[in-house]
Amino acid sequence: MPRERLVVIGGDAAGMSAASQARKRRDADDLEIVAFERGRATSYSACGIPYWIGGAVGTEQELISRTPEQHRANGIDLRMRTEVVGIDLSSRRVTARDLETGRAYQEAYDHLVYATGSVPMRPLADGFDAPGVYGVQVLDDGRELIAELDSGRVERVVVVGGGYIGLELAEACQVRGLDVTVVNRSPTPIGTFDPDIGAFIADAVANMGIKLVFGQAATSVETGPDGRATAVLTADGTRLPADLVVLGLGVRPNVGLAQAAGIPLGASGGIVVDNRMRTQVPGVWSAGDCVESWHRLSGQRMVVALGTHANKQGRVAGINLGGGYATFPGVIGTAVTKVCDLEVARTGLSESEAEQAGYCFVTAHVDSTTRAGYFPGAKPIRVKLIAEKRSGKLLGAQIAGREGAAKRIDVLATAIWNEMSVDEVLGLDLSYAPPFAPVWDPVLIAARKAFEAVEGDIARDVREGNHG
Amino acid sequence: MPRERLVVIGGDAAGMSAASQARKRRDADDLEIVAFERGRATSYSACGIPYWIGGAVGTEQELISRTPEQHRANGIDLRMRTEVVGIDLSSRRVTARDLETGRAYQEAYDHLVYATGSVPMRPLADGFDAPGVYGVQVLDDGRELIAELDSGRVERVVVVGGGYIGLELAEACQVRGLDVTVVNRSPTPIGTFDPDIGAFIADAVANMGIKLVFGQAATSVETGPDGRATAVLTADGTRLPADLVVLGLGVRPNVGLAQAAGIPLGASGGIVVDNRMRTQVPGVWSAGDCVESWHRLSGQRMVVALGTHANKQGRVAGINLGGGYATFPGVIGTAVTKVCDLEVARTGLSESEAEQAGYCFVTAHVDSTTRAGYFPGAKPIRVKLIAEKRSGKLLGAQIAGREGAAKRIDVLATAIWNEMSVDEVLGLDLSYAPPFAPVWDPVLIAARKAFEAVEGDIARDVREGNHG
Repeated sequence: MPRERLVVIGGDAAGMSAASQARKRRDADDLEIVAFERGRATSYSACGIPYWIGGAVGTEQELISRTPEQHRANGIDLRMRTEVVGIDLSSRRVTARDLETGRAYQEAYDHLVYATGSVPMRPLADGFDAPGVYGVQVLDDGRELIAELDSGRVERVVVVGGGYIGLELAEACQVRGLDVTVVNRSPTPIGTFDPDIGAFIADAVANMGIKLVFGQAATSVETGPDGRATAVLTADGTRLPADLVVLGLGVRPNVGLAQAAGIPLGASGGIVVDNRMRTQVPGVWSAGDCVESWHRLSGQRMVVALGTHANKQGRVAGINLGGGYATFPGVIGTAVTKVCDLEVARTGLSESEAEQAGYCFVTAHVDSTTRAGYFPGAKPIRVKLIAEKRSGKLLGAQIAGREGAAKRIDVLATAIWNEMSVDEVLGLDLSYAPPFAPVWDPVLIAARKAFEAVEGDIARDVREGNHG
Repeated sequence: MPRERLVVIGGDAAGMSAASQARKRRDADDLEIVAFERGRATSYSACGIPYWIGGAVGTEQELISRTPEQHRANGIDLRMRTEVVGIDLSSRRVTARDLETGRAYQEAYDHLVYATGSVPMRPLADGFDAPGVYGVQVLDDGRELIAELDSGRVERVVVVGGGYIGLELAEACQVRGLDVTVVNRSPTPIGTFDPDIGAFIADAVANMGIKLVFGQAATSVETGPDGRATAVLTADGTRLPADLVVLGLGVRPNVGLAQAAGIPLGASGGIVVDNRMRTQVPGVWSAGDCVESWHRLSGQRMVVALGTHANKQGRVAGINLGGGYATFPGVIGTAVTKVCDLEVARTGLSESEAEQAGYCFVTAHVDSTTRAGYFPGAKPIRVKLIAEKRSGKLLGAQIAGREGAAKRIDVLATAIWNEMSVDEVLGLDLSYAPPFAPVWDPVLIAARKAFEAVEGDIARDVREGNHG
């Protein structure tokens, strides 16, 4: 009989990373581990689903990094197709329901890891819950959507929302030869990019042949006699016929169960955790898309749904509840995506985020190439930097370009992480050879231009008497 | 009549960056700028020459970022094909010789920028100065070598030295369909990589069909009746027939003129400069391949011949002598190259460099993929990290892999620059999406493994009583 029992709710990245780390540190005699997953798969790449739909990834299996059987062989009592429907914090018990048999039962815990991820945002307006309206979040959603697309019934797809997931799903449908329209409330897609970079993204999407209805909210979904979605209606009365509607409005933390149990949520809507991934309830941990993370630049707590954070946070929770010590040091909003052959990436604060956080700043951008300009395969890259007024501290960066452009964001993310000024960035010893970069890497040219902008701003303030 | 005169010796990256920056800050009435270049081109990419030889770059012109005419239009009195043959520090005069007419003349200066670059290392042994033995450093060298290769007389090429330039030139000749052999003193190529990563490089070179004679020094060059090189002889008596011998032994700073004039050199053989690029002689500045730079990890001063440093140092010198303020913050030994389709990169200290600098360390490496494993086009990548014992401070990193692998070194270079520990690197918010990285970026997995190695080492010390 093990000394303690750990119950994990949610069998994807965060939950199973926590379970695996705890198992690594405490053996089965000491800690029993029971994990509940309501779906059919564990430890899969949700971020890979659009590529599976588009056909770049051939099978569902390729998206799964560890199967239920592998987890079981590792000493984790994994209960698939079983949903946790209640948590009693005072008696330290969860109520689980087997989705196949309908049987409900209770399980006691000493430690609980809440890792339920997120759910697609779905407007409350008319028709958004009709059949034929798909949110894509878990592997089972992907399977359903593919079955629908394979049925031959679908010709016209309307994607509601032009964020990361919306655009990735739009491209996946376009690649399948469908007629695709994206409706987006803002004039430019992916709202975490500034409009100037967003315009590049919009161009790339339009060049693929995807229709854009931007600067317009989708207000309702029209349904046919069978109750199925037939069109999306927008604020100005436009009717966009659709055999299928895909939601790409982003996700919200899946916290209903936690909220009902009394696990405290933050203002962001995510579960409040400390840097060891402990919630405010003793014995209860949380990790992944359902928690809020500390943003190192804005100082705010926010929800960031991203597999890389889920894995790291799960690892941290697992190490800690396994008796070790680890912390999750927060986020700076790094993200990357590919739209057709356009690569876009961002880190830190956008202009509007910087304003909101109270920073005064200057911006600079540079258009350069990914390799030496004369080298075969050199592709265009634009780097935009946002630097704090006076100090020149790098606050944010955005990149748009072709092959080889986007991953450079990681250098700027590392610079922001270390609170470097753009002048300091300019001094960095970055790699140079003609097949890999111009002799002034685009990142360094951007830093130089941003530094000049900071200096120019100071000079202007001195002239105008706003200084010192 | 301008108030002062700046004389620049050397018309490539460092010299012309300095001239341009000074010109930007001081107008022609205030500062006259005279620049001497003994070759036929200014501001060209020496690093691009191997790709021009191999045919990836079509013409010499593509390698030139600014022509003499452009510099002249910018208000720089540029004297091409003119070699400075003497510097008189006490009277502040240089003696220049027009290589076309043979005419020598003197020119006075108030400020002098010494930017003569480097020259290929050439063994003193028999035959290494014979016709048919080529060092490739300046654009004119490239033109000569291409003429030789185009002549049809050359079938067998022996490259002496398996460093960056040696391998790049070997590949260029191989691509042209020649029979190529590389002789290298060490058992693995590019000595700044550890042997385990070097072995990958050797494999890639061999797979191209280039013959490797490694672990053997080239002792002499055999010449024919016409005095021309006919073979390279190695220490064990092997005779490698050659219609052409290419030197790839690296370069040494071109400091003869400085030394003769009395400008102090450091132990590394490069000119001693401070962080504003001032030599120890008032009014004399230096930048580029001919100076020594401070290595931020070893604390040593060393010569690093690389276009990116030359450009930055020239810029710093030009800003300072133009009345501004700028510093060059040192180097950490970042470098990258491509050998066939293998990308290799390094930063910080190698194992042997770390030992030499007195560090105790652990190492870790990981084999992963450049994209999510399931994503089309995912390529292999190996990341090796060297971390200080106890502190876990990242000391060095090496990467070998295929497309998309090498540029990740810049993240690690930025981490080293900021003195991050591998534990801190593990916390970095790096970009993730399946087309760009696995959910754990190879850099992060390597950091995790290195952290485990640091912790394991501490635990071992505690067990063995070597701790605290």
